[in-house]
Amino acid sequence: MRITSETVADGIREQLFTIGDIPGVLWTPAEGSGPRPLVLIGHGGGSHKKGWEVVSRAFPYVTSCGFAVAAIDAPGTGDRPEHPQIRRLVALIQEREAAGEPFGPAWPALNETVAAQLIPDWQTTLDALQKLDSVGDSRPVGYYGLSSAGEMGIRLVAAEPRITAAVLGLIGSDWLTGTAARITIPVEFLLQWDDEGNPRDSVMKLFDALGSAEKTLHANPGSHFRVPSFEIDSSIRFFARHLGSPGAASGF
Amino acid sequence: MRITSETVADGIREQLFTIGDIPGVLWTPAEGSGPRPLVLIGHGGGSHKKGWEVVSRAFPYVTSCGFAVAAIDAPGTGDRPEHPQIRRLVALIQEREAAGEPFGPAWPALNETVAAQLIPDWQTTLDALQKLDSVGDSRPVGYYGLSSAGEMGIRLVAAEPRITAAVLGLIGSDWLTGTAARITIPVEFLLQWDDEGNPRDSVMKLFDALGSAEKTLHANPGSHFRVPSFEIDSSIRFFARHLGSPGAASGF
Repeated sequence: MRITSETVADGIREQLFTIGDIPGVLWTPAEGSGPRPLVLIGHGGGSHKKGWEVVSRAFPYVTSCGFAVAAIDAPGTGDRPEHPQIRRLVALIQEREAAGEPFGPAWPALNETVAAQLIPDWQTTLDALQKLDSVGDSRPVGYYGLSSAGEMGIRLVAAEPRITAAVLGLIGSDWLTGTAARITIPVEFLLQWDDEGNPRDSVMKLFDALGSAEKTLHANPGSHFRVPSFEIDSSIRFFARHLGSPGAASGF
Repeated sequence: MRITSETVADGIREQLFTIGDIPGVLWTPAEGSGPRPLVLIGHGGGSHKKGWEVVSRAFPYVTSCGFAVAAIDAPGTGDRPEHPQIRRLVALIQEREAAGEPFGPAWPALNETVAAQLIPDWQTTLDALQKLDSVGDSRPVGYYGLSSAGEMGIRLVAAEPRITAAVLGLIGSDWLTGTAARITIPVEFLLQWDDEGNPRDSVMKLFDALGSAEKTLHANPGSHFRVPSFEIDSSIRFFARHLGSPGAASGF
């Protein structure tokens, strides 16, 4: 793991890093040291590790909860090189979308291709982060990801026992039902009531499939991208409840 | 309005009152004075104004938010006299339930009978409470009610413009769709995923019918009575967001 840059602003230390060819970012409280809970945040399709949907969660998790938060670029995004197969599949999907047609088999193929690289990358990243003094391996780990990052999250959480609480959702992929059933950790699952690409029945089917004893579905009106900001607050409470708080942190 | 008893414990002042033949209870912070947001809490079927589902919400609303909280006995419950027609309808429903049969027309009839008295009673109660120094008429009013109190809540909120935020749910009465459509205030709506008496589709249909721009559905696994305790915390956040906080209160 190589730290390529470090800056501090507004009480948050931001460290850009690479682990082999994985580019990532770690945010921790500027003050305080020692092990702390870690939240991994996945970014959505067409975004990257410092996309708004990542940063808008990461910053309050650090400042309100004292957590460490990490994000990495998915294959073919951010600081990663072009990925020809992913590029081809995305182009195919965009064509279909422009024509108002269903995405067809390119959509599950894209997800399979991304997952084949991203799930092991997340696990490699977690290995490396847990060796840092500012994270450690003694505190719980959470995952936050919606939409494409919800799809990847279901796969990652089912595969990775170190993750013990997750916020997921905005996804209704029917091929994930079996994977979702293997998840047993507490999950907060988001649904947008008027999501064009993810009909509410399909999202609820995935929620229903989750094997978790504690799972809670939050549904809000509006389209795919209009998750209300109070759901950020709710995710803070969810992670605070399940990951606990670091010794050094915040009156949260 | 007649205050019939007053006690203080754990930072909460409890005043039992009657307004005409309506028996009620008002909880306010023991310290502090002046107007404050008010939450009305409805009780479920077979319970009363001081039932556990009322008190478990009321106490944290007072201590965390500094709100005033009030509850009244529905017709035929608590300190109210027997109500022969309600008694007859409840007995009929219990017979059907014991026989494993659908409740039939006795169920809407019961709701109509209770509502015909309870909705005006809530409005009379609100009139009286807003004349008290410890509540006043300058601060917003919320309503919390699930199950039968969700049914009554939909009717009350649709009829009463002073109520500006509500937590409702655990009800799927199809005759309420039109009433729900008239509601435009923010609503947090609860659904129990395995509710025997309120199939999830019927509950979601009511959620869908709500005319509110801000409405959020929280669904959790389990039967009718197993609403998880973190939903109490969520309702605190919801009311704090929409009713604001009183000058005198709490670091919430």
